[in-house]
Amino acid sequence: MRVKKIRMGMVGGGEGAFIGAIHRIAAAIDGEIELVCGAFSSTKEKSLSSGLGLYLDKSRCYESYQEMFKQEAMLPANERMDFVAIVTPNHLHFPVAKLAMEYGFHVMSDKPATLSLAQAYQLKAVIEQHAMLYGLTHTYTGYPLIKQAKHLIEQGELGNIVKVVVEYSQGWLASKSDESSKQASWRLDPEKSGVSCCMGDIGVHAANLAEYVSGLTIDNICADITSTIAGRTLDDDGTVMLKFSNGAKGVLLASQISIGDENNLTLRIYGDKKSIEWSHLTPNTLLLKSNYEPTQQIRAGVGTMCNAAQSAMRTPAGHPEGYLEAFANLYLNFAKQIRAFQANEACDNQTFDVPGIDEAIRGMAFIEGVITASQSELKWQPLLSNSVEKGSE
Amino acid sequence: MRVKKIRMGMVGGGEGAFIGAIHRIAAAIDGEIELVCGAFSSTKEKSLSSGLGLYLDKSRCYESYQEMFKQEAMLPANERMDFVAIVTPNHLHFPVAKLAMEYGFHVMSDKPATLSLAQAYQLKAVIEQHAMLYGLTHTYTGYPLIKQAKHLIEQGELGNIVKVVVEYSQGWLASKSDESSKQASWRLDPEKSGVSCCMGDIGVHAANLAEYVSGLTIDNICADITSTIAGRTLDDDGTVMLKFSNGAKGVLLASQISIGDENNLTLRIYGDKKSIEWSHLTPNTLLLKSNYEPTQQIRAGVGTMCNAAQSAMRTPAGHPEGYLEAFANLYLNFAKQIRAFQANEACDNQTFDVPGIDEAIRGMAFIEGVITASQSELKWQPLLSNSVEKGSE
Amino acid sequence: MRVKKIRMGMVGGGEGAFIGAIHRIAAAIDGEIELVCGAFSSTKEKSLSSGLGLYLDKSRCYESYQEMFKQEAMLPANERMDFVAIVTPNHLHFPVAKLAMEYGFHVMSDKPATLSLAQAYQLKAVIEQHAMLYGLTHTYTGYPLIKQAKHLIEQGELGNIVKVVVEYSQGWLASKSDESSKQASWRLDPEKSGVSCCMGDIGVHAANLAEYVSGLTIDNICADITSTIAGRTLDDDGTVMLKFSNGAKGVLLASQISIGDENNLTLRIYGDKKSIEWSHLTPNTLLLKSNYEPTQQIRAGVGTMCNAAQSAMRTPAGHPEGYLEAFANLYLNFAKQIRAFQANEACDNQTFDVPGIDEAIRGMAFIEGVITASQSELKWQPLLSNSVEKGSE
Amino acid sequence: MRVKKIRMGMVGGGEGAFIGAIHRIAAAIDGEIELVCGAFSSTKEKSLSSGLGLYLDKSRCYESYQEMFKQEAMLPANERMDFVAIVTPNHLHFPVAKLAMEYGFHVMSDKPATLSLAQAYQLKAVIEQHAMLYGLTHTYTGYPLIKQAKHLIEQGELGNIVKVVVEYSQGWLASKSDESSKQASWRLDPEKSGVSCCMGDIGVHAANLAEYVSGLTIDNICADITSTIAGRTLDDDGTVMLKFSNGAKGVLLASQISIGDENNLTLRIYGDKKSIEWSHLTPNTLLLKSNYEPTQQIRAGVGTMCNAAQSAMRTPAGHPEGYLEAFANLYLNFAKQIRAFQANEACDNQTFDVPGIDEAIRGMAFIEGVITASQSELKWQPLLSNSVEKGSE
Repeated sequence: MRVKKIRMGMVGGGEGAFIGAIHRIAAAIDGEIELVCGAFSSTKEKSLSSGLGLYLDKSRCYESYQEMFKQEAMLPANERMDFVAIVTPNHLHFPVAKLAMEYGFHVMSDKPATLSLAQAYQLKAVIEQHAMLYGLTHTYTGYPLIKQAKHLIEQGELGNIVKVVVEYSQGWLASKSDESSKQASWRLDPEKSGVSCCMGDIGVHAANLAEYVSGLTIDNICADITSTIAGRTLDDDGTVMLKFSNGAKGVLLASQISIGDENNLTLRIYGDKKSIEWSHLTPNTLLLKSNYEPTQQIRAGVGTMCNAAQSAMRTPAGHPEGYLEAFANLYLNFAKQIRAFQANEACDNQTFDVPGIDEAIRGMAFIEGVITASQSELKWQPLLSNSVEKGSE
Repeated sequence: MRVKKIRMGMVGGGEGAFIGAIHRIAAAIDGEIELVCGAFSSTKEKSLSSGLGLYLDKSRCYESYQEMFKQEAMLPANERMDFVAIVTPNHLHFPVAKLAMEYGFHVMSDKPATLSLAQAYQLKAVIEQHAMLYGLTHTYTGYPLIKQAKHLIEQGELGNIVKVVVEYSQGWLASKSDESSKQASWRLDPEKSGVSCCMGDIGVHAANLAEYVSGLTIDNICADITSTIAGRTLDDDGTVMLKFSNGAKGVLLASQISIGDENNLTLRIYGDKKSIEWSHLTPNTLLLKSNYEPTQQIRAGVGTMCNAAQSAMRTPAGHPEGYLEAFANLYLNFAKQIRAFQANEACDNQTFDVPGIDEAIRGMAFIEGVITASQSELKWQPLLSNSVEKGSE
Repeated sequence: MRVKKIRMGMVGGGEGAFIGAIHRIAAAIDGEIELVCGAFSSTKEKSLSSGLGLYLDKSRCYESYQEMFKQEAMLPANERMDFVAIVTPNHLHFPVAKLAMEYGFHVMSDKPATLSLAQAYQLKAVIEQHAMLYGLTHTYTGYPLIKQAKHLIEQGELGNIVKVVVEYSQGWLASKSDESSKQASWRLDPEKSGVSCCMGDIGVHAANLAEYVSGLTIDNICADITSTIAGRTLDDDGTVMLKFSNGAKGVLLASQISIGDENNLTLRIYGDKKSIEWSHLTPNTLLLKSNYEPTQQIRAGVGTMCNAAQSAMRTPAGHPEGYLEAFANLYLNFAKQIRAFQANEACDNQTFDVPGIDEAIRGMAFIEGVITASQSELKWQPLLSNSVEKGSE
Repeated sequence: MRVKKIRMGMVGGGEGAFIGAIHRIAAAIDGEIELVCGAFSSTKEKSLSSGLGLYLDKSRCYESYQEMFKQEAMLPANERMDFVAIVTPNHLHFPVAKLAMEYGFHVMSDKPATLSLAQAYQLKAVIEQHAMLYGLTHTYTGYPLIKQAKHLIEQGELGNIVKVVVEYSQGWLASKSDESSKQASWRLDPEKSGVSCCMGDIGVHAANLAEYVSGLTIDNICADITSTIAGRTLDDDGTVMLKFSNGAKGVLLASQISIGDENNLTLRIYGDKKSIEWSHLTPNTLLLKSNYEPTQQIRAGVGTMCNAAQSAMRTPAGHPEGYLEAFANLYLNFAKQIRAFQANEACDNQTFDVPGIDEAIRGMAFIEGVITASQSELKWQPLLSNSVEKGSE
């Protein structure tokens, strides 16, 4: 039988949405994944209109995700979708993922995974129960030089990590007048966004990146979050001091009111031998610094890269790849994992890694922990309480 | 009837090739184009193996481009390919394009369009005879800020252009030992590459970019090309002094032996009011400079962009897009032109521009002109002689 | 009578010292100040040897600062020194300054001004009692673009300030083995350095810069300082969360163990209209950012600068000036203030500003406040307690 | 007897002049040189006023350079000036230098050394006849990292040099209206400036820098210069293709009409092993590049530097030094050479190098060569004809 592309369905991402189009590009770019169906919007007409605009067959443009899972599950195995991409506002991530798995579909979810930490533990139970694949789009882990930085640290190039500085600053919510956009309105609405706007939307990316690259976990935090613009109930800016599992100190800054900042995610990790520095706006350069030797500008594709970084590049050195390619790397790796799953073979998950449920739980613990810590008059708070860790509600 | 994606066939780009994969990514990224068939390699086995690896139907993996055109032309109109992407070594660009048009297929060709200027004039005649669409992948014109720079100059922001400095420097052929790769060997072989290596491969991109953005044409040149590494018959480095149609002066540098340079394409255009500066390695920043005001860092997606630039972006400001997206913009615009062609409607070719046969002719005139000028003991040479312009051989 | 240069004496800065040579260069560069005498070292021989190496007259190379003040005071008014530069380790700053003023000499002191906040209040009383001029070398306020940034904020260009991020990171104390240098040993010794190493040496510069440019004061802090290297009693790294007088939030990072960082002082100030960004390693560029317009690269000397910035430049645009020139600007302004003082005329202290005793008090309050706050289990601490503000001990 | 500073006189550089103040700062900064006299302007009043403003004794403010040399020569050896700094418009450089030497004074001259190549040969004869020291302020050779780059090439780090790209672009003469300044008017006047404006003012710096760092000489040139603004008799822009003594190719760009460019001197030298890249606007960073390893950011003061670079720095890494310090390095080295001359000792001229008469001759040959080559219809011209090399007129 002819080998076919991995088949993807989509929930959310209809006309006018932002992140849905990004997911579709990321899935399409390498020619390994085919979009075959979708429940793109809350009404049948909009969903159909969106689907036809994406060249889908009319019969596979569904009016609800429930309907989609039900119908697709009844199609022959070599026609029905293999996995679903969830690109709705936050509050739907969990129920859609849960139902998908119950119908036997793998899940690639936008982040944050759920609305609460407790829900994240529930989701983990669902995943384990059905033994399905689950991916979470912490996009920035998809950059080749982020993987190379992680590799350098694993190889001991930096020595013992002593300090981590991570920042994710944007300016797009700096004014009251910025709130009217579709993107802004649901993010600032606690019912759709959860307990946090800034920390839940981008702070969690920064925390994930710091842990991913350093290989450490954040154990204790001291947080101060702010709603800078009058009338907002959720945070739009915040600073979190960090203590890591190995005793290293750190700082995390996140902001949506840093006017003039675009999408400024930066990461610096200092060891007792060397340090690394990376900036999202120049993602193809990684600085490797030390005290008594020239700083090395590690460039994507120049010289020897680790396997994970090498697999994450499509062009030779000097051809800038960016955000969409980083995003695509998550999908490409997820497709490899699905292929291996279907063939009942092992997948080299070190090289073809995708953030998953454990990162989802870490992320929700971070978001809730920051809110709690920020409300406390005491300085330091543990990041993950034992009671919650056991999954009790 | 269901609206379907534009269907693409491919000639060249089999396993191990570089630029074929780039074209496929560029075509796939926006979900508007579907690869349906190919003659990927010189043998039937290799072509089939490549095609199956791309999830094509076995029946549409052809052993030759002649066979592909013949068979595809017999398929129903809503199944057969709409256009062919030509990604072979240079010497095949012309014959494949010619035959495709004779069979009624549009053509997207890698550059340079032909092996000689005379051939380029022949190709123009073929295109006009069959009234088909022809695109040439001068990739760098696809960058949003290149389009914005062109727009600023058209709007008169820079005043009268007085100087243009364009450079395309690479280092990958700096050593004798670099010649063994597949990419290097055909580029350094006159039979497959034509009269020039460096100028034909990258110098012509620089010339195209200078003319595209400035809106001027290069009228006279003074050239000095070099084969830096012993034993090479073709150039690997060169400098060309330029005189433009409006009297502006300029310089073009191209090199494949500038060790440590990745793919360093830079463009500066100076007017009598302001100037612009752009570098391929940081493609999302365009500097607009003047003498008595702060330099403006124009960033892709920040503030108001012209229509052509706006259409060339897929993400908000701060999400780096790069080479593959620039390449994809050529395909996306070509798909729009094909749709309009098929619907017998007008296409806004200003916004959805694709380099075509006129750029092909300019390019071949540049390559041959540089070779001639470099051999001359006189300083200045006209770029395009009248006799050749008439297409006589 | 011939107008002569302002005459400077120096305490400290003998052979092998670092900062003394910097002060001498800063004083000499503009030809307005002449070094005439010094008590450079703790022994007569060393002091003489240092002085002769600086082309001083043997008779004016003193064995102690007490002797210098006594002897100089007996010289004719047009021969004796006008002011003394104090470049000793921290613990001597106060007693030397106090005695100098008692003898009628103006004082330019290296920072921090004293060993404690209480001492700083005492120093203020001394200055007021003798009505002398006192300058403190918070060098970074001497950069032209720092003055321009301050000016832009005063003019309301940024709107209301909502966030300040300031960082001063170095790596030179990252290893145990780095402690052996002369510079390191006294800084890490509480008796000579005071209660803090990192915060007292560089954190206080960052705090001063943030307050200088923003025009705000830090009211509350939450601090976490660290002695990263085993065996150190003083801090070598720290993070301070800030609340400013107008409600703005902020973060201050200071580090001497950020391996690979040279002298990385960076400042970002966000308003509700625009923001500014400056980095000490590229001091001649100031970014002025907003959400919907291109970032402006304000360059030293390009276009119109405020008076204070204009007075702080010696060369046209494009001629990099740096640290020594910034330092020199403090001396140049101090010389102008002395001239005005001597002529009993008003000095435009806005244009020719020099950090003084108020900045000294703010600095000591910051250093002591950070130590206190870091030891507290509570999150927030006021920066300056009322009782201390009144100068009681 | 007390050791005193080296004593400097100055010709030119009165009130309103630019470069005179720069020379004075450069001479003063290290405390090794003292300005003792001057003939600053063409009238006695202006010269006196300038001198008093510089705190000189009235008796040593002269009305002409002839008078100054005569009077100073009659002072006691330990009072009279040791050398003269010549900071007049170009046409006076030669006569002043010649007379100074005849009176027994060393000479530090602004560049270009003379108005013509023939004059430069005459000057060489004068220098040899009187056996005096002569320095020429090719300032950019004073940068620490330029010295380090030269050192790396001497050590063979780059392998055989194959290509040199040097550019010096400014925009300050981009408009007709820019011509009214004092700086512009004499530079555009052939009687005061010589045969060239742009090439004589800055192109020659670029040529000097390329030869200084590469250790090669320019043997053949192909030049195209332009008077961009109507009405100018001298060039304000030009491009020169270069052939070096070892066969390496190169390009030199110089411009005063590149609007928005400040003082953009950049140098790239490519070997067959590695390459270097330096830019005057970020003078404390030198890139060392290769094809298969990360680019090294060599930073002034980080790690081991060659002696000449080490001697050219006053501050630790991370304290930006700039143009004035580079200029001061020429004066500091010249002072060392004078001390050695006076003590009849050898000076390590490799470490304490100052551009001299040979660079002066190379410079004038370059300027005149470019004018000649630009007028020729033939492509290539030798840079230095034998007849002129012999000094015949």
